[in-house]
Amino acid sequence: MSRWLEKKESEFNHALTSRDVKKMRALFNKVPTVDLAEFADKVEDPSSLTFIFKVVPSELTADFFTELNDDTQEALLKIFSDAQLVELINKSYTDDIVDVLEDMPANLVTRALKFVPKERREAVNKLLNYKEDTAASIMTTEYFQFHSDIKVSEAMKIIREKGKSKETIYTIFLRDDKRTLVGTVDLDDLIFADPNQTLDEIKNKEFLFTQADTDQEEVAAKFKKYDLHALAVVNKEQKLVGVITFDDIMDVMEQETSEDIALQSGVVPLKDEYVETKPWRMALKCAPWLIVLIVIGVFSELVLSQFQEKLAIVPALIFFIPVLMDTGGNAGGQTCGLIIRALALKEFEVKDFPKVVWKEIKTAALTGLIVSSFAFCVFLIEFSIPGLIKTDFTDFTRPLIVSGIVALALFCAIVLSKFVACALPFLAVRLKKDPALTSQPFVTTIVDVCSLLIYFGIFTIFYVTGFFG
Amino acid sequence: MSRWLEKKESEFNHALTSRDVKKMRALFNKVPTVDLAEFADKVEDPSSLTFIFKVVPSELTADFFTELNDDTQEALLKIFSDAQLVELINKSYTDDIVDVLEDMPANLVTRALKFVPKERREAVNKLLNYKEDTAASIMTTEYFQFHSDIKVSEAMKIIREKGKSKETIYTIFLRDDKRTLVGTVDLDDLIFADPNQTLDEIKNKEFLFTQADTDQEEVAAKFKKYDLHALAVVNKEQKLVGVITFDDIMDVMEQETSEDIALQSGVVPLKDEYVETKPWRMALKCAPWLIVLIVIGVFSELVLSQFQEKLAIVPALIFFIPVLMDTGGNAGGQTCGLIIRALALKEFEVKDFPKVVWKEIKTAALTGLIVSSFAFCVFLIEFSIPGLIKTDFTDFTRPLIVSGIVALALFCAIVLSKFVACALPFLAVRLKKDPALTSQPFVTTIVDVCSLLIYFGIFTIFYVTGFFG
Repeated sequence: MSRWLEKKESEFNHALTSRDVKKMRALFNKVPTVDLAEFADKVEDPSSLTFIFKVVPSELTADFFTELNDDTQEALLKIFSDAQLVELINKSYTDDIVDVLEDMPANLVTRALKFVPKERREAVNKLLNYKEDTAASIMTTEYFQFHSDIKVSEAMKIIREKGKSKETIYTIFLRDDKRTLVGTVDLDDLIFADPNQTLDEIKNKEFLFTQADTDQEEVAAKFKKYDLHALAVVNKEQKLVGVITFDDIMDVMEQETSEDIALQSGVVPLKDEYVETKPWRMALKCAPWLIVLIVIGVFSELVLSQFQEKLAIVPALIFFIPVLMDTGGNAGGQTCGLIIRALALKEFEVKDFPKVVWKEIKTAALTGLIVSSFAFCVFLIEFSIPGLIKTDFTDFTRPLIVSGIVALALFCAIVLSKFVACALPFLAVRLKKDPALTSQPFVTTIVDVCSLLIYFGIFTIFYVTGFFG
Repeated sequence: MSRWLEKKESEFNHALTSRDVKKMRALFNKVPTVDLAEFADKVEDPSSLTFIFKVVPSELTADFFTELNDDTQEALLKIFSDAQLVELINKSYTDDIVDVLEDMPANLVTRALKFVPKERREAVNKLLNYKEDTAASIMTTEYFQFHSDIKVSEAMKIIREKGKSKETIYTIFLRDDKRTLVGTVDLDDLIFADPNQTLDEIKNKEFLFTQADTDQEEVAAKFKKYDLHALAVVNKEQKLVGVITFDDIMDVMEQETSEDIALQSGVVPLKDEYVETKPWRMALKCAPWLIVLIVIGVFSELVLSQFQEKLAIVPALIFFIPVLMDTGGNAGGQTCGLIIRALALKEFEVKDFPKVVWKEIKTAALTGLIVSSFAFCVFLIEFSIPGLIKTDFTDFTRPLIVSGIVALALFCAIVLSKFVACALPFLAVRLKKDPALTSQPFVTTIVDVCSLLIYFGIFTIFYVTGFFG
């Protein structure tokens, strides 16, 4: 937090404790609403919350309320009088009402909906029923739609009169006689245009839109690719049902990335921000994956138990189990991270799988070659420092063979791991799951079992052919 | 790629091979420039590139060129005539010229700069010299700045006349007599205002700006928090030096996230997109971390070599090494992922470290309790299935003790791992490094060594106290 903001926060708290209406109002005229909402989120006492809300300048009420976090919103909704509720609802954009209500308990939703004017209630209910994470769930219903035949001057007149109630006026949507969406006009083109031109004459040559049920991640990719301010959402009859604006998309980008990172780290995604999540809730998000992975890990116990006689012959083999497992897991994690990110950014699609796998195998072979050659030298050096590693090796043949076996196993583990890490995300997409589910921990644990099998396999070959004779 | 785009691509390729000017021009009137640039990126033959560039409608030249990837841009710059270069430069925004030149070889930059008109050359050179990843490096110098005293009608007149050469007209910047930045006006407020009001009367109450040397990640956080279209960049004297627009910020958000994910996966961040990076280059990005981790892994070899006699007493202890190491690593990875993300989103700061660590320790203790209780039961079940795990245990005391030791070690490994994973990113920020550098693989490898020490430590205590008597 900047020094300036910290100063404002202490002024805020001071005005609050002394119930100083004048000072509090002055703050609302100087400090961005979103920062004031952050200060207010830290207030828990209901009477203080009531005080703040009474002081908010009327034109900021809706903005301020929208920026508060879920808990504060819920607390306020509970203590609001009917009149306050009506005022808030009348001043809010429909999509903001929906955003708030989505996370509220059912009884509060019912109470709030009672006060939504009939003509808007339908829109609110409709938005509430759209599936989460679709284009429709983040769209607004306050925008301008004009017939494409009207003149620039006419459109500008209407925008000047009614624009303030719309969430976006930077993009204007055009329809034909059948109310089908036929194009868009940017506000700047409207300003540059001759007042006598029709909207149809100045519309954008590109005509982009999205279906109501499209995934919000795909919508975000479109915004980024085409540098959009706003995007039309249409139903199956190509009729405009809503508009998504760029500020909602920034939130989506952030939310989707946080979700992906959580999944890739083997955590069930948090509902709230990290700082707002309580330890016991966090533990419940962390434990499931760890438990699943412990169950998968049983296989590595079985493998080791099967090979214990072999380990007794050359105990030095045990020393390299950690490094083998770590390297396999780390190599897979690298590929996993890159592939899932590239899939999220739509750099390639499922049908590109063979191309990507082939590339990954080449990368893996090169990486494996570099890393295992290096490791081979490190192991030899370790063995040649007297007393560093305790073994019963008497000459230099054994260290050479053991280092060779480990290096070879490392190479195989890297290639296998990168292959699995590359294949799993594609498999997930194929099965219509989020590729981020095939997280690094998951890949690590699977690859570990395979790496151990490879390790002992290679040893067995050496053993049978008499190298340890 | 959508079916529509695929069809357009084959039309594009057809028009290209048959050198059909009319068809190609028709495509430029129908298909978004960014998609055409993607098609063109796949073309390698210089004469085809020359053909495409001759056909691009003059008003799209700059746009189209900007959207091409580095390699295609470089190829084109090499074959452009002087006249073509002049035309391109005259039509491009200053910050786009800089973006292109930044990645070009020095001789091409020198040649191109010769054709930049004198009055712009200074701006280009200045932008080229700003440090990478700062606010200044992503700003544009084409925007409107008015004296705060002028009238709305006057401002609108100037915008109508000259707005097309500006990169953004959605936010207008105000200065006083000393050319100090004093506020901003949004285009929509300008439209809603009475033509006789002064800009000062309708300016935004919030007045946000950023310093030229601020990190771009911080700038992105500001855009997201305040839902900005554009943000002023000022120098130390509070004079406006440039403006950052929201579309550049979306690119920054994406780029920073990709970088963080790469680092967290233990990969040196790629310069280009995944699909554009060649396998050998990728191997060079993947190998360094793996090698560093193998060197750190030497410690786990030493630990195991030290404890080999103990392992000979109860060989069953070996079986659980993988699961212990995996769980420790995975638990740390979870915390690492969440903390680094929260730091990137500025959910907390370095000074919040004690609070965050305390929370993480509570989370870790709870997670550890759940997971190790569960694991204890799994291990007992494994031991009680005859023949599943080969041991010389004769009664049920040994399995109980071994399972207990492993479960206890698991608990300690989870707590330790989450503590390390939480502390390292903060330490990185403290040392002014990117927290994402303290990646999951790094935490895993450090924690592995500690987990092994804890494991054998616990065993030693049990052993000394006669449990294996």
